[in-house]
Amino acid sequence: MLPEAAQQVDLLLECRWLLPMTDDQPSLEWQGVAIDKGLIVGYWPLEEARQRVMPDRVHALHQHAVIPGLVNAHNHAGMSLLRGYADDLPLMSWLNDHIWPAEARFMRGDFVADGTRLAMAEMIRSGTTTFSDMYLAPEDVVDSIAEFGMRAQLCTPLIDFDIPWSRNFTHGLEKTRALTDQIRPFPALSLAFGPHAPYTVSDESLTLLARAQQALGLPIQMHVHETADEVNQGVTAAGIRPIERLHRAGLLGPGFQAVHMTQLTESDMALVKSTGTSVIHCPQSNLKLASGMCPVKVLLDQGIPVALGTDGACSNNDLDMFDEMKTAALLAKGHSGNAQALPAMDALAMATREGARALGLGDITGQIKTGYAADITAVDLQALNTVPVHHPESALVYAVNSRQVSHVMVAGKLLLEHGQLTGIDEKALLDTVAQRLSEMTTEYTQ
Amino acid sequence: MLPEAAQQVDLLLECRWLLPMTDDQPSLEWQGVAIDKGLIVGYWPLEEARQRVMPDRVHALHQHAVIPGLVNAHNHAGMSLLRGYADDLPLMSWLNDHIWPAEARFMRGDFVADGTRLAMAEMIRSGTTTFSDMYLAPEDVVDSIAEFGMRAQLCTPLIDFDIPWSRNFTHGLEKTRALTDQIRPFPALSLAFGPHAPYTVSDESLTLLARAQQALGLPIQMHVHETADEVNQGVTAAGIRPIERLHRAGLLGPGFQAVHMTQLTESDMALVKSTGTSVIHCPQSNLKLASGMCPVKVLLDQGIPVALGTDGACSNNDLDMFDEMKTAALLAKGHSGNAQALPAMDALAMATREGARALGLGDITGQIKTGYAADITAVDLQALNTVPVHHPESALVYAVNSRQVSHVMVAGKLLLEHGQLTGIDEKALLDTVAQRLSEMTTEYTQ
Repeated sequence: MLPEAAQQVDLLLECRWLLPMTDDQPSLEWQGVAIDKGLIVGYWPLEEARQRVMPDRVHALHQHAVIPGLVNAHNHAGMSLLRGYADDLPLMSWLNDHIWPAEARFMRGDFVADGTRLAMAEMIRSGTTTFSDMYLAPEDVVDSIAEFGMRAQLCTPLIDFDIPWSRNFTHGLEKTRALTDQIRPFPALSLAFGPHAPYTVSDESLTLLARAQQALGLPIQMHVHETADEVNQGVTAAGIRPIERLHRAGLLGPGFQAVHMTQLTESDMALVKSTGTSVIHCPQSNLKLASGMCPVKVLLDQGIPVALGTDGACSNNDLDMFDEMKTAALLAKGHSGNAQALPAMDALAMATREGARALGLGDITGQIKTGYAADITAVDLQALNTVPVHHPESALVYAVNSRQVSHVMVAGKLLLEHGQLTGIDEKALLDTVAQRLSEMTTEYTQ
Repeated sequence: MLPEAAQQVDLLLECRWLLPMTDDQPSLEWQGVAIDKGLIVGYWPLEEARQRVMPDRVHALHQHAVIPGLVNAHNHAGMSLLRGYADDLPLMSWLNDHIWPAEARFMRGDFVADGTRLAMAEMIRSGTTTFSDMYLAPEDVVDSIAEFGMRAQLCTPLIDFDIPWSRNFTHGLEKTRALTDQIRPFPALSLAFGPHAPYTVSDESLTLLARAQQALGLPIQMHVHETADEVNQGVTAAGIRPIERLHRAGLLGPGFQAVHMTQLTESDMALVKSTGTSVIHCPQSNLKLASGMCPVKVLLDQGIPVALGTDGACSNNDLDMFDEMKTAALLAKGHSGNAQALPAMDALAMATREGARALGLGDITGQIKTGYAADITAVDLQALNTVPVHHPESALVYAVNSRQVSHVMVAGKLLLEHGQLTGIDEKALLDTVAQRLSEMTTEYTQ
């Protein structure tokens, strides 16, 4: 495929370790990754790469592990302004008595946009290149996402009652349709329906959603079986389990992203498996809200795809996918009673390749592979908490601190270089957050 | 107590937030902490502090939370050179097939000293001031600990069979006695017996230990009820549960530090409670080795003291107490099914005051209090992942990245200043680790 003469490319990454995260590739040492026009050209042993390509620019990542950019498959980015606002509470009290009232008071479009900018800066700083967002003002964050340069799936917040974004479910569907036009100019943005949860969406709304999905062909991301109470109340109300209700409405399938899924019977899993539905696991949020534990090892053993998300900053309280990978890998072992569950390489896959696949972006990002977007994260492993490096995947999952992320690029564009955000004025952003905090504090102490 | 005229002191810390972690003090804003001759003089609202004391030096920590230095109550520091050497394996296979053989081959005194130096550098960088160590060559790490300036409890490795340190249990007790002389010149070092576990220490050895404890008056730290298998085999062999066996040998009491404790019946807990025994919780290690889950909420509800430890770098794989606090707080909620379990302030107490108390250092360190050693950690909360700060304890436990630790002091001496280790040549240390890795790699690939 490649010419005998050296090929002109934009960039060569000289990598101490390379973890391409393709389906069957292990970690490699001393590789050169060539990038041109935002795409990955290929990778070869470093000496060979130096012969094959003539790069305009070289990044010497000589003590770094290079991985696909991380995919945070579930977030409510605008909530970052409410980080730590209410902790140590169970899901329903947390939502009804604290988060929803605070959102109703503060979360206008400009607040949401500032929170999303804070979230993106944090995510880029910690190695994430793609995220899924589900929050109250999607049309107000489109420009910020494009400006910051991340890849994102925007899920529109669909719910039966009146929220800051919409009067009701139908209104939300209409606004979703309008958003398809708004995001068209931005190739790194995609759209999904974001129905809140089975207990906040009626059967009638589910029918409308199925029809809208057929018309627009968008994926669906939804909180499903987050707690035992949700499932029990769902069974009481409908006579069937919530996931069966979604199935009967015609919604499950490869385009359906079921978030949380801590309560799963054998038949629930059979339904997920047979329909090709993806699971999005949010271990830190599930622990913090005492929602339950997703049986990750059982799901993976059955071949069900599992992606990873932080959830919003209110129930985590950071957006650090390295932290999340470690928790996922540890909790899978503790919960299954099997120390071999979710080994480091599988946790990394969940946060890269499988995340991209769950969001319908599996042919574009999540792997380092010829023709894929150059969405790449480099991590400096020469640090007190990661040496000696016996195995790079172990260092990345079990020991790395996300501040070791040194370079992050999306579609070949550097968003982080030597640990510094490029093109984002971090100080101005922190000042904006301080101003927003002051507005909230003034209001909630009145 | 203080004179009307301003008192001359070595240092004044100007703190945006102060969390003294005394038994009943909440977090405070804008305080001044005065330090003199290695001890805490007191703290007052900042303006008052500026009137009361005349410091030689001021640290302006105007966007920082100031807390007692963290106490890592269980570690095997020398094992840091084996970080990530063998992962994703259950405890017994991990120990018997990987860790113990590797230790037998590599862990001579000089290796242990280098691993301990690496561990201490990592711990200081992440805000820990006091640690408990249990490893194979305690006499070879005394000088390094003194040089690095940390506070430490050294637990001597006591076990029935031949290990690099000792021929048998009796030999270990003799060497423990000798160590009491060696550590006498170092006021920040204390000594404890470190019998490995009930399944590696015979009844005869337990009797010898009880006698030695009466003679030397040292605390005991021991792995107890780490796994269900351990307890079941113990019951089969002795007819009683291991903790009951320790009690009958006369060992439980306020000086006994029981590490792990994932398998606890009501009567086990009654025994722990009635004897004043401390529990040392290592949540990440317990998850990683699928050992089980310590019922932290139940223990705390019963008034049993619980401290926190990382365990060694092989079963974690970092020594980051911020990471450990978050895992402890999240897991307590997930395991108990109660999102109110182990709120942020209690997790911080476990990692400071309660850790110090468990190690018998409760009158010296673990709190910011008049007359206590100035063992203090400052954390810069003005970061993308911790703003806005609605509540500092929430930021510290749920969102902080340990690289935000900016200042660390032990007995008033700065070991970390503006994120840089003082008095430790970090580059030389990393070079030494690389050399040790190369020696191990050469040997184990032969």
